[in-house]
Amino acid sequence: MNRVKPYLQVALDATDLITALGSVRDIADDVDVIEIGTVLAFADGMGAVGALRRRYPNHILVCDMKLLDAGETLAHMAFSAGADWITVGAAAHIETVRSAQRVAEQFGGEVQIELFGHWTIEDAKLWVESGVTQAIYHRSRDAQAAGVGWSEQDLMLMKQLSDTGLELSITGGIVPEDIHLFKDIRAKSFIAGRALANHNGKAIAREFREQINHYW
Amino acid sequence: MNRVKPYLQVALDATDLITALGSVRDIADDVDVIEIGTVLAFADGMGAVGALRRRYPNHILVCDMKLLDAGETLAHMAFSAGADWITVGAAAHIETVRSAQRVAEQFGGEVQIELFGHWTIEDAKLWVESGVTQAIYHRSRDAQAAGVGWSEQDLMLMKQLSDTGLELSITGGIVPEDIHLFKDIRAKSFIAGRALANHNGKAIAREFREQINHYW
Repeated sequence: MNRVKPYLQVALDATDLITALGSVRDIADDVDVIEIGTVLAFADGMGAVGALRRRYPNHILVCDMKLLDAGETLAHMAFSAGADWITVGAAAHIETVRSAQRVAEQFGGEVQIELFGHWTIEDAKLWVESGVTQAIYHRSRDAQAAGVGWSEQDLMLMKQLSDTGLELSITGGIVPEDIHLFKDIRAKSFIAGRALANHNGKAIAREFREQINHYW
Repeated sequence: MNRVKPYLQVALDATDLITALGSVRDIADDVDVIEIGTVLAFADGMGAVGALRRRYPNHILVCDMKLLDAGETLAHMAFSAGADWITVGAAAHIETVRSAQRVAEQFGGEVQIELFGHWTIEDAKLWVESGVTQAIYHRSRDAQAAGVGWSEQDLMLMKQLSDTGLELSITGGIVPEDIHLFKDIRAKSFIAGRALANHNGKAIAREFREQINHYW
């Protein structure tokens, strides 16, 4: 079991770069990973990745593309712009996963499979065989809004994924009090968006760290 | 059975707006629908949608986001920028589909479900119940590159989808000689990328039209 301490990750999902830069400024020292969310990436394109790379040369940068096709081209765009990790949707054809992974390896980056839809553990094994090391277990923002919470089934699936060797980043309305739920899985990163990117962000980040340090 | 004549659609997947504008200029009069491909949308953001809207006020514009989450925000961004249709990945949670569809209706636009991964006909029925009218049957670019062709199973699935009431756009290395394969389905649009957006594009577009006019 990998007991490496999980990272804390802030997801920037503003609809413009200026707002995103403002929301990360105060919290940057308190996080390990900065994510250019899908919304921000679609709003301002790869320029948003470049702007964050220049401003934060030492953070891990994730470009959350959730790409489903054109793996080589999209991966090349994101890594060229300065991303360290990119996300690929679980529904992507395995050839798309392999294409993105090949580009990631050329850049010394990593692919994260973002789990949406009817994926299976057999899919997960194919991802691992393709060289992928990470997946993102994602409670959908829209599912949250509809009142769908973390369930026993979520935790069981995470454990199964973790057992394939994948490191898991966990996201979807996560709060510091949830951290203990994930202590038995190979957690790579805990991702929070609005919880961290607001006026109270530094205090929330500290609470996340305390919980992480308690359980890892 | 809907015997409305299918549209011809050009997909712009350049990695920059200038190249995309150049590649559509000569072909625009020959197509009904212009698609801002995922690659272009991630390269230049929603500015690419706005630029094409200003230049082509009378075409149907599609923003191919393949969105999987944040349905309301992403849909609002694309429709505000001038899109008529947006794409949602089949793996999106049904609440995400509903959110995107609600915004589409506010703008008088439409959602297209882009079929990747392990979707089912039961999913398709939920999309239809949510008000969605279109889906995109997509032979993956990476699957094509790996030599995977149109199969009997593709055609059977398209027929089943068509029978749920969804209109289908068809894409993935399609050539004029393929058009007859789809004559029994509710075809909305035939989408070609590199075949149309090159020096020989006008001739290829004419061949597509001839085939469409022959079978519809």
